[in-house]
Formats: sequence, C-alpha cells, structure tokens
Amino acid sequence: MESFIEVPPDCDFPLENLPWGVFKARTGAIGDSPEVHVGVALGQHVISATTLHVAGYLRDLPEADTRVFAKGRLNELMAAGRPAWRAARATLQRLLSSSEGELRDQPELLARVVHKQEDVEMLLPARIGDYTDFYASRQHATNVGAMFRGLANALNPNWLHLPVGYHGRASSIIPAGASVRRPWGQVMPANASAPVFSPSSQVDFELEVAAFVGPGNALGEPITVAGAWDHVFGLVLMNDWSARDIQKWEYVPLGPFNGKNWATQISPWVVTLEALEPFRCSPPPQIDPEVLPYLREALPYTYDVELTVDITPAGYDRATTVTRSNLKHLYWTFSQMIAHHTAGGCNLRPGDLLGSGTISGEEPGSRGCLLELTHAGRDEVVLESGTAGVAGGDGGGGGVASETPGVRRRYLEDGDEVALRGWCGGEDQRRRIGFGLCNGKLLKCRT
Amino acid sequence: MESFIEVPPDCDFPLENLPWGVFKARTGAIGDSPEVHVGVALGQHVISATTLHVAGYLRDLPEADTRVFAKGRLNELMAAGRPAWRAARATLQRLLSSSEGELRDQPELLARVVHKQEDVEMLLPARIGDYTDFYASRQHATNVGAMFRGLANALNPNWLHLPVGYHGRASSIIPAGASVRRPWGQVMPANASAPVFSPSSQVDFELEVAAFVGPGNALGEPITVAGAWDHVFGLVLMNDWSARDIQKWEYVPLGPFNGKNWATQISPWVVTLEALEPFRCSPPPQIDPEVLPYLREALPYTYDVELTVDITPAGYDRATTVTRSNLKHLYWTFSQMIAHHTAGGCNLRPGDLLGSGTISGEEPGSRGCLLELTHAGRDEVVLESGTAGVAGGDGGGGGVASETPGVRRRYLEDGDEVALRGWCGGEDQRRRIGFGLCNGKLLKCRT
Ligand SMILES: [Ca+2]
Ligand SMILES: [Ca+2]
Ligand SMILES: [Mg+2]
Ligand SMILES: [Mg+2]
Ligand code: NI
Repeated sequence: MESFIEVPPDCDFPLENLPWGVFKARTGAIGDSPEVHVGVALGQHVISATTLHVAGYLRDLPEADTRVFAKGRLNELMAAGRPAWRAARATLQRLLSSSEGELRDQPELLARVVHKQEDVEMLLPARIGDYTDFYASRQHATNVGAMFRGLANALNPNWLHLPVGYHGRASSIIPAGASVRRPWGQVMPANASAPVFSPSSQVDFELEVAAFVGPGNALGEPITVAGAWDHVFGLVLMNDWSARDIQKWEYVPLGPFNGKNWATQISPWVVTLEALEPFRCSPPPQIDPEVLPYLREALPYTYDVELTVDITPAGYDRATTVTRSNLKHLYWTFSQMIAHHTAGGCNLRPGDLLGSGTISGEEPGSRGCLLELTHAGRDEVVLESGTAGVAGGDGGGGGVASETPGVRRRYLEDGDEVALRGWCGGEDQRRRIGFGLCNGKLLKCRT
Repeated sequence: MESFIEVPPDCDFPLENLPWGVFKARTGAIGDSPEVHVGVALGQHVISATTLHVAGYLRDLPEADTRVFAKGRLNELMAAGRPAWRAARATLQRLLSSSEGELRDQPELLARVVHKQEDVEMLLPARIGDYTDFYASRQHATNVGAMFRGLANALNPNWLHLPVGYHGRASSIIPAGASVRRPWGQVMPANASAPVFSPSSQVDFELEVAAFVGPGNALGEPITVAGAWDHVFGLVLMNDWSARDIQKWEYVPLGPFNGKNWATQISPWVVTLEALEPFRCSPPPQIDPEVLPYLREALPYTYDVELTVDITPAGYDRATTVTRSNLKHLYWTFSQMIAHHTAGGCNLRPGDLLGSGTISGEEPGSRGCLLELTHAGRDEVVLESGTAGVAGGDGGGGGVASETPGVRRRYLEDGDEVALRGWCGGEDQRRRIGFGLCNGKLLKCRT
C-alpha cells in the first residue's frame, strides 16, 4: 500500500497507519477554514479531514453526524462507532494512494489538505470528559507491592480478580511536547514526626498505553466484555507523571491525588485498532484464579506493541533507553477494563481516556517507572551523557546498572527529558505502525 | 426585601436567596428562545436569565462574555467571577423587587421570564469537567476508621494534616429527582474464598455538600488559601450513592471506584456565597496539630447550614429523618480543599465540582450515612411507615433506635427514597435560605 505522499523508511506513519489527531497551524491559519483541524498523520505530513470535508469528501459515514470533522475535536467521530471509523479510513486510504488521482491531481485542494507536521501544533485529540487509570500489569503491581509489603504479600487479594483502577484528573492531561513543572506538595520525610510542604524530590514517569473510548454506554447499561473492544477508538502512549513522595503520604485510604494530578501526558496521534489489527496477540493466561464470567472472553486478545522510555539527562544531548516493554505484558486487557468499569452501570462517554497503568515486563530492563527500576530510589539508573550543552541526540545504548561512565538517577532531576515510544512491526516485511512520540521535559518547581 | 412574586413563608427561595439553576420546559418550549435556560429560583417560580438577556437585560456584567446566559449551562457565569456574580444578583434583585415596576409592568415580558417550577425540568447546573470528593468530616473519618481499625487508629496519620480527597466520576453525576439503579458488582462474601458477581446488598447514601468551582486556575498556578473562597461559585447538596460491599473489596490500594461511580446526585439549585453571607461562622479549630502554612487562614470561615436526610421506605408514605447534621461540623473548609487540591499545580476549571465528603456531627443522630448509623449493618435504623401504598407524606419524627413500630433498615432496599435538605436561618427574623431538595429513589438492580 503506497501513497503519492512520501513516507520515509521506518517512519511511524505509513498509509497502513493513518492515526487520528487534532492540530492547528503554528503560525497563521490552515487554509481558509476553522482554526482547529481534525485529521490523520501520513509520513512527515498531516492530512486535514476538516478541509477534505469542507471540499465535499467524508460526508456520508454510517451513523455519523455530517459535521463530525468540523468541531476541532475527535469526540464526534469517536461517538460514531466502528463502521464510521472504517469508512473514513477506507476513503482516506483511497484518496491518498498512489494509484488514485482524485486528490493528487487537484493541486489547489492538495495544498490546503496536506501540511508538514513541523508546521502544525498538535492538540489533545478529544475533550476528555473522564480519565481513569488502571493498574493492569501484574509485574508492576508485584514489584511495587513487594517494595511496600514484601514479596509474599505483593499482590493485594483483589488484584487477580478484577482490574483495579481509580478515577484520575482530566483537567491536567496535556499533549506531548509540553514541559511539566516539578510540583510542591505535602510529604512526610523519613523519621520526621510531622509533614512538610516542599518540592517533590521523587518525580517519576510511568510508561502507559491509554485507550480513547468510542461510543460508550448510557448510565445503568453495562458494556459486556465480548463487545468491549468496539468501544475503543484507538490507543495512545501515556506518561503518568508521578510524585512518589507526595503519593506515599496522601494515598491512604482513598488513593493517589496530588501525587498524580499535576500532569498526565499523552501522545497526540490516536492509533486505531484497524491499523493494529495485524498485530493482535494473546494476553497472559488467566487460569489461577479463573476470572468471573463477566470478565471472561472466549478468545481474549491484545496487541503486540513494543514500548520504550528514553531519558535525556539535563544539560546533555544523549538519550538512554531505560525501559523496553510491551503492551502484551498486561494481565488485564482493555476489553476487561471496560467491562469492569461499566459493570455497576457507570457510563463511559466518547473521548473518555482509560490508562493501562504502568506496563512492566518480566525482565529488570522492562520496568515501566523509576520507582521499580531503582527499587524506590535504593539503586541508580545510569544514563549516557553525550556531550554537555549540545542539542540533538537520538537515543540508543546504555541502561540500568551499566558500567558506562554516565549520569546517575534515582528519580528525575530538573531539566531531564522523558520520551516514550511505541510501535508494531518494522521487520519481517511488516510495515511499522508507530505511535509517534510522547515527550516532555521536567522544569524546576515554581518559586 | 420583598418581591412582587409571591414567596410562601418558610420557602427555600426568597428574594435574598436567588440560587442559580438550569432548566427546560417539561412540555413544549419556554417562550421563543433556546431550549435550555439559565436562571434563578424565586418562591415557587423560576426566573429565566436567558430570556431577560434576550430582552436586553444582564448585558454588561464585569469580566463576563455577553453570551453568558445563552449557552444552557452556568459554566460561563462561573468563569466570570465574583464581580459578575454580584452584578447579576443585584440586577435580578432590583428587577424582581416589589418597589420596582420595570419588569412587573411589562406583562408580556414577565410571562416569558417567570415560570412555575412545576412546569420546568431541572438539569445539571454546569458541564462538570472534573469531580473531586473529599473526606473532610473528622467525625465521619473517625467513625468509619474505628469500624475498620479500632478507635485508637481511627484516623490515618495524614488525616489531620491535609484534606484527604480523591477524584470521582463526573459522567455519572445526575440531578435530583432521578432514580438510581442498585448496581451489580464484584464483592467478597464473608468467609468466602473467592469473590462473586452479584447485586450490591449494601447500598448507602452519603450526606454531602458540594462546591461548584468559579474561575479556577491555570495548570501549574496554585490558588492560595486566602483567595480560595473566591473560586467557589456556590454550593449544592450531594448524595454520593455508595455500594459498601463493592467498595470494601475493591478500594485497596487505589481508592473507591465501582462502589461509587454508578450515581452521584446533586440538588439543582446552586446557592451563592452572597446568599449565605449572613450565615458565616467559624469552623472547628485546627490546633492539635496546627496545619501547614499553605492551609492556614488568618480568619477561617465556613457557613452554618442545617442538613437533614429523610428516608421514605419502599411501599410506605411517610418519611423519617435519620440524620440531622450541619456544614459547620466539617474539619476542613472548602477554601482549604481548594488550596490543597491546587498546591501541586492541578488546575480547577469553571464548573468543576468539589464534594465535602460525608458530613457527620458529634451526636449519634448526626451521622451522615447508614454505614455509620448502623455500625456497618450491625444495628438497625427504624423508620416510621405511615400508611402503606398511599403517596405523599412529609417527613418528621422517628429516627435511630426509636421504639416506634416501623420498618427497619441496615442498608437501603429497592424502592426506598432518600431526600437531602439543607437550609440556613428560618428563625430569629432571618429569612430562610434553602437548598431545595436532593431526592432520589433506589430501583431494583438490572435483571
Ligand atoms: Ca498510573
Ligand atoms: Ca463521599
Ligand atoms: Mg497523571
Ligand atoms: Mg458517587
Ligand atoms: Ni510536503
């Protein structure tokens, strides 16, 4: 499948991907029409579905309002459901394919529809009504639990029976590229008798994948696990920035609050399940214990998405990959999270976001946050430093407990940049389906 | 202060109150203009600010967009801030006062502006972006903690140092009058070795007051405690419907989830701080321990709002008041909740909702939920029954452990109706400022 628009080798966004996003021009406006556009990524370009719609395309999607691309957000497309998503994808793949002249041969329209990614600013893909974060990685829950309660009691009694989750803060979800500020908060210093209010000294990332909800359900009408994947519009990468010292002091008994509500960062391109289809795979078996029938699927599946986290330490130009993990490690699937979330009647709305929780694998190098990688700050992660003061740098090498001379971290320091990446394929003749970048820099605290 | 519109004695909504709400006609439309109106309550009527605005009134509020009453929600007015709120209130009080003929003497306009409450349906006052629930009553936290951990360890170590809160579910917030359905969920029966999926058998109410956020703050810019009350547009009653058996099994370690996300019910009229001003009072002292400076106010205040909960048992016509409490019992004030919530940079947006947590007082009869009133189902609440099968009934009498022959409850049964009320004044020549009704009936579970 080839497009007349160039797609560099190993690019995240071939014609097979076409992830959805929301963007506006960095300067001026995109063509004539509204300020904020909806569209897809292709190679190093964005394709404006909004402009195509104004030009008369993408008008008759099943179940979709005709103004679905006109509102500067994806909520209306998400609400329309899979038949509309498939139809829009098919139309775009046809219009953009190298064998099709309809769009290619209208240079004036083409110039208004196709823009360089570097010329646009990516916004949040949807108005996120509610954001839920789960805790679906058995390895993560075990590693964290063992640190607090010992290995024998690492998993809480409920953990293998239900996908534990909590309601997160929607207002502070921000797109990739934005910087975040180290938060102040109330913490209890070791051996102190009273808490203090200070900047967090334990700022961490969390490697997660998050699902944008499609049609959703009415209050009181649960979604069954068998139909639950049809309520996933697509997936993004998520860095659930966390302040461990604030979280530790506050979280009993009602869960994380200020430790996590100061920033949650997502990658701006929503990769559809249609694009991920060739990379379906089985999740870990759930046999000891078996799960209750409302969580049991005849043929459970997830997706084989490789995930990495790179850190570029403050003042240096080289990134080090500190984590290599995979979505398929999750014990609970998004379909189970949705079935559980709605089992009591809770309604999910189009554009709601469901985070997976930190995704850790079995290997030490696959742990999805510094809390796990450094055993709550007892160990250090060693980062390659590159050349101080020079911008650029492109990842690779290094890792935990490496002997390479470098910069050491227990938690993040001011100026550190964290970059999450995710992709399927890229070898064995399978086109790479990538998620783009979820990157953010930690700024020093407010003074 | 008198209006030319009749206000019955002891009515919740005299001219001194003028709470804000959002409504539409039960049948047909309200006058000519949009389907959903914004306005205030007065006596047994609603006053459409939307229609007044169309007619040229309420046009020049400080800091407010001119279309603030045209969007069928209060978010834009909430965003405008206290000077706009005061100006709108002053204009409405003048237009509605018996000494002023400007509105009264335009019968055609009057007929479009003033509608009977029975002819309108009340909607949610705002689009609620995020909903947070706190746990601010010391008595409630102590009573609940003592049941789980014994009286000596009732309060967790953090409780007296910060207003504990968690993020709740915004999508399932519903207005008073709606019925709710007993949820299904995963619960662990006593002495069982594995959980089961069943209808909750421990459905409870929680008596709360909630604040609608006004202007709010940008991400990364905390609101100081001294200025925090200016970010409260007004207060409503809230029943945080809770399924205790689901909550108990799920809540460790990330907090309540399906136990509470199936319905949260609020009264539809938002009572402003201007209306509550005569009822300011001091909160409980915070001296042992003193709170950290970011939570310390020179002259802390709260409001003296009486609160009751009535239950009308299924199949009967008489309500019994099971709880008499007061907003002033809360250990933490809404100003402290806001300062803490934003201390790490979390942004509050206009229309966000902040629940107080269950409001219990010192007396056994002031406990704000059945969990406390019945000691987790060990005791029973006795309800007067009245005459079976007859509609109507008006509260009064009865209560916990009464000897009156009646109906007994440990938790709520299908068909029970719960009604929260709140008011200030009403005696000593002080006009009653009321909150209206927060009522809902529990329906049987989905089958
Ligand atoms: Ca997380
Ligand atoms: Ca509550
Ligand atoms: Mg977060
Ligand atoms: Mg609730
Ligand atoms: Ni180009």
